[in-house]
Amino acid sequence: MLKIDLNSDLGESFGHYKIGQDEEVLKLITSANIACGYHAGDHNVMAQTVKIAVENNVAIGAHPGYQDLIGFGRRNIQTSPRDIYHSMIYQISALQGFCHIHNVKMQHVKPHGALFNMASVDKDVAEAIAEAVYDCDPTLLLFGLSGGELVRVGGKLGLTVANEVFADRTYQPNGTLTPRTEANAMIEDVNVAVERVITMVEKGVTTAVDGTVIPLKADTICVHGDEPKALLFVKQLHQALNNHGIILEAIGARK
Amino acid sequence: MLKIDLNSDLGESFGHYKIGQDEEVLKLITSANIACGYHAGDHNVMAQTVKIAVENNVAIGAHPGYQDLIGFGRRNIQTSPRDIYHSMIYQISALQGFCHIHNVKMQHVKPHGALFNMASVDKDVAEAIAEAVYDCDPTLLLFGLSGGELVRVGGKLGLTVANEVFADRTYQPNGTLTPRTEANAMIEDVNVAVERVITMVEKGVTTAVDGTVIPLKADTICVHGDEPKALLFVKQLHQALNNHGIILEAIGARK
Amino acid sequence: MLKIDLNSDLGESFGHYKIGQDEEVLKLITSANIACGYHAGDHNVMAQTVKIAVENNVAIGAHPGYQDLIGFGRRNIQTSPRDIYHSMIYQISALQGFCHIHNVKMQHVKPHGALFNMASVDKDVAEAIAEAVYDCDPTLLLFGLSGGELVRVGGKLGLTVANEVFADRTYQPNGTLTPRTEANAMIEDVNVAVERVITMVEKGVTTAVDGTVIPLKADTICVHGDEPKALLFVKQLHQALNNHGIILEAIGARK
Amino acid sequence: MLKIDLNSDLGESFGHYKIGQDEEVLKLITSANIACGYHAGDHNVMAQTVKIAVENNVAIGAHPGYQDLIGFGRRNIQTSPRDIYHSMIYQISALQGFCHIHNVKMQHVKPHGALFNMASVDKDVAEAIAEAVYDCDPTLLLFGLSGGELVRVGGKLGLTVANEVFADRTYQPNGTLTPRTEANAMIEDVNVAVERVITMVEKGVTTAVDGTVIPLKADTICVHGDEPKALLFVKQLHQALNNHGIILEAIGARK
Repeated sequence: MLKIDLNSDLGESFGHYKIGQDEEVLKLITSANIACGYHAGDHNVMAQTVKIAVENNVAIGAHPGYQDLIGFGRRNIQTSPRDIYHSMIYQISALQGFCHIHNVKMQHVKPHGALFNMASVDKDVAEAIAEAVYDCDPTLLLFGLSGGELVRVGGKLGLTVANEVFADRTYQPNGTLTPRTEANAMIEDVNVAVERVITMVEKGVTTAVDGTVIPLKADTICVHGDEPKALLFVKQLHQALNNHGIILEAIGARK
Repeated sequence: MLKIDLNSDLGESFGHYKIGQDEEVLKLITSANIACGYHAGDHNVMAQTVKIAVENNVAIGAHPGYQDLIGFGRRNIQTSPRDIYHSMIYQISALQGFCHIHNVKMQHVKPHGALFNMASVDKDVAEAIAEAVYDCDPTLLLFGLSGGELVRVGGKLGLTVANEVFADRTYQPNGTLTPRTEANAMIEDVNVAVERVITMVEKGVTTAVDGTVIPLKADTICVHGDEPKALLFVKQLHQALNNHGIILEAIGARK
Repeated sequence: MLKIDLNSDLGESFGHYKIGQDEEVLKLITSANIACGYHAGDHNVMAQTVKIAVENNVAIGAHPGYQDLIGFGRRNIQTSPRDIYHSMIYQISALQGFCHIHNVKMQHVKPHGALFNMASVDKDVAEAIAEAVYDCDPTLLLFGLSGGELVRVGGKLGLTVANEVFADRTYQPNGTLTPRTEANAMIEDVNVAVERVITMVEKGVTTAVDGTVIPLKADTICVHGDEPKALLFVKQLHQALNNHGIILEAIGARK
Repeated sequence: MLKIDLNSDLGESFGHYKIGQDEEVLKLITSANIACGYHAGDHNVMAQTVKIAVENNVAIGAHPGYQDLIGFGRRNIQTSPRDIYHSMIYQISALQGFCHIHNVKMQHVKPHGALFNMASVDKDVAEAIAEAVYDCDPTLLLFGLSGGELVRVGGKLGLTVANEVFADRTYQPNGTLTPRTEANAMIEDVNVAVERVITMVEKGVTTAVDGTVIPLKADTICVHGDEPKALLFVKQLHQALNNHGIILEAIGARK
């Protein structure tokens, strides 16, 4: 029986500012990456997001980022691995507090935005994050770009890692995502996306933009639901996966 | 054998900004209240302060405050008990993360500045704080103004509370501190301070400014070491207590 | 010929966070109150909002608030008149910079949220704000609650003040707004609102909730457009005022 | 008659956090670079620093930086020239407000830390800064690294620029500063420093670490006074320049 984990970035509202349709998205996914107050989110938003994730039986993960609200964590900020390590301890632990008061164990950690991208290619950043996750709790899953540095160093450290893929993006022959600046970066047809996801999960391969078949490990699929169109895509993907008899299940639930 | 706990507010540096003489103070006290990144402190400062507290065998407490770096947590900010509750969960949990990576259990929680003052007199604020501490870990000690709302509601909730007194301050007949605006608010003579502390601890009373003897429970004594003169006072108090055969020991160590 | 000024709070987005429908609202009003980066807004949002205000020939005002992004400037923060004075100088001057690069003169200043409310009743706060406005530029108009402290002390200082009223709110016999917690606080019927506005502007009176006619000076009318329903109300009000032959014009344009 | 401008970074305290010995330094320098609330400083600190600069007859400049209090503006932050341009308008204008209330005209702008370094080598960043300065006030002087991109593009744009040199640093044969990581980066002997400064100012050259004589334009000299030793160096430099009959004068005062 084929199983797939759908994850999404949530809890990114802040104070009076609202972003996303968390309540809708939480009905469709199996793992929630919840912002921890550095690039987005605040203590009230975190409490509320953990609560509704639990109500929807969605597994909870920390989604730590750079301390950069105005840049939404999407800008590289020059800093040291030690600073990143401590910022991970802080953010992961803060979210663990909200898991604790809702009697649920945190399942995973997935870094956000510019930090996610850095961790995919920079060994020092990847190690700082992986070590922080391990030191917080060695049973936490670590989510990272499929085939990237983060899952590599995380696995080496002894963490269970999850290779993340994107249902709505195309890939280059070398396994990296086609940059959004290129015309063929996005997959708009949900049926095509579903077929690709099934092939990734069943066979561990995908077809790159040049037609070559490349290996690509898919443990979890990232989806976005912050715009009406994006939410519709998730709904269609969710339905299509069900129709194919593929079980949507959080990775942590399988053990 | 008489025992006393000395506590001090530490870890209040931020980024490039340095405040306090934490390394010196940690040699003299038994309980450290460590800022959690809202009114002061950051993830690097927290890591460093927990580390040197552990090295000095000083018990660790969270020192959460209003989210107000520019006001250093000393200004009242209008908010709801629910917001305070969540902000406590966030801050306490974040510091627990640093305790965890240093293999030490957090001993206590003491709110900071304007929040400490509010919690001493406002039942709703006191309850929000006490419930957050209880929900994080019911074995945490709760530090509050001796005889104030916080220790009252904390005790009622089932927490072990510690009544905090000040070695260098005088008291009014009703048990409140003499405001700093009055001439006789401070006790400059360390010998007088020591005698008063011993009386508080031994007999649970002190002499108010009008000469009347009033009840005053003293479980822990707050000292400051952020200025050379203040640090000298702590050194003298530490020495004098030793000379009197009074054992300096964290409250949590007695159990 | 009867003239009315319609003002609205704009430029309250921040980084990735979007609030309001500024482009739509700017087609309907005559004075824009633009957030200055303390309670909302940032330097990019300020630049963009000034730009589109100028394009729509809408007069520009600074909308300074407490330095409280997470509370959106709606919470009282304990501070000194001197701190408020300096925070006004900072915020007003920052927005003046964006007016300068767009070759437009700032028309007015209107404090935001909790600061607006404080300035309506607290003489010290009102004076700190009025003096800052005067010191920045004595030709700036000062917007405040009709009949409140701010317009009183502003006028005394020599500033031209604008008494602000609300088209969609009812008033108490003493001239204060009916609190939103009461059932009859809001006026839903736009025709009623228009009639009331015309009476305020023509005769300087309004009918309080108990039926008594009270004096109420109306120099400018505050409208909100951050929700679809609110925007519709502004559109209807705008149209109805036009139909009554009342000219919508910024106060500063009349001189 | 030889004239030299001494500049220093000031007004970098924040809220309860104090940095620097501004009152002492202001007695020794001719141009003050005042932080504008992004990387350091706040509205109260800015007001106070402008006030004492005026009292000491020291020319005032804006010292804008990245919006990064925790990193003190010393970390590169990935952003766009447009964002930098707007952040300059905001910061420069805010400080102009404090100059205005103290009846003094701002003399110059000097970017801070990581932004200063970026502007020395990156044309797009340099242009964003130079254009913002020009658009705020084309008579403002622009301070930048001697021979760097900022003074080059600033001059091209029509601004009067000031080439900044360092009295206590050595130079490479290509005119760049010797990195602090190298043993011979600093000049400890104040007499040597003074001789070098005089040669720079008189002849527009200096001797690089390999002994070659290189061109180096010196319009203003940066000094630091945040540590006792640094302050002593400034005092000695100040005295030595006086002894050599060199007049300390702000650049703007010469026109």
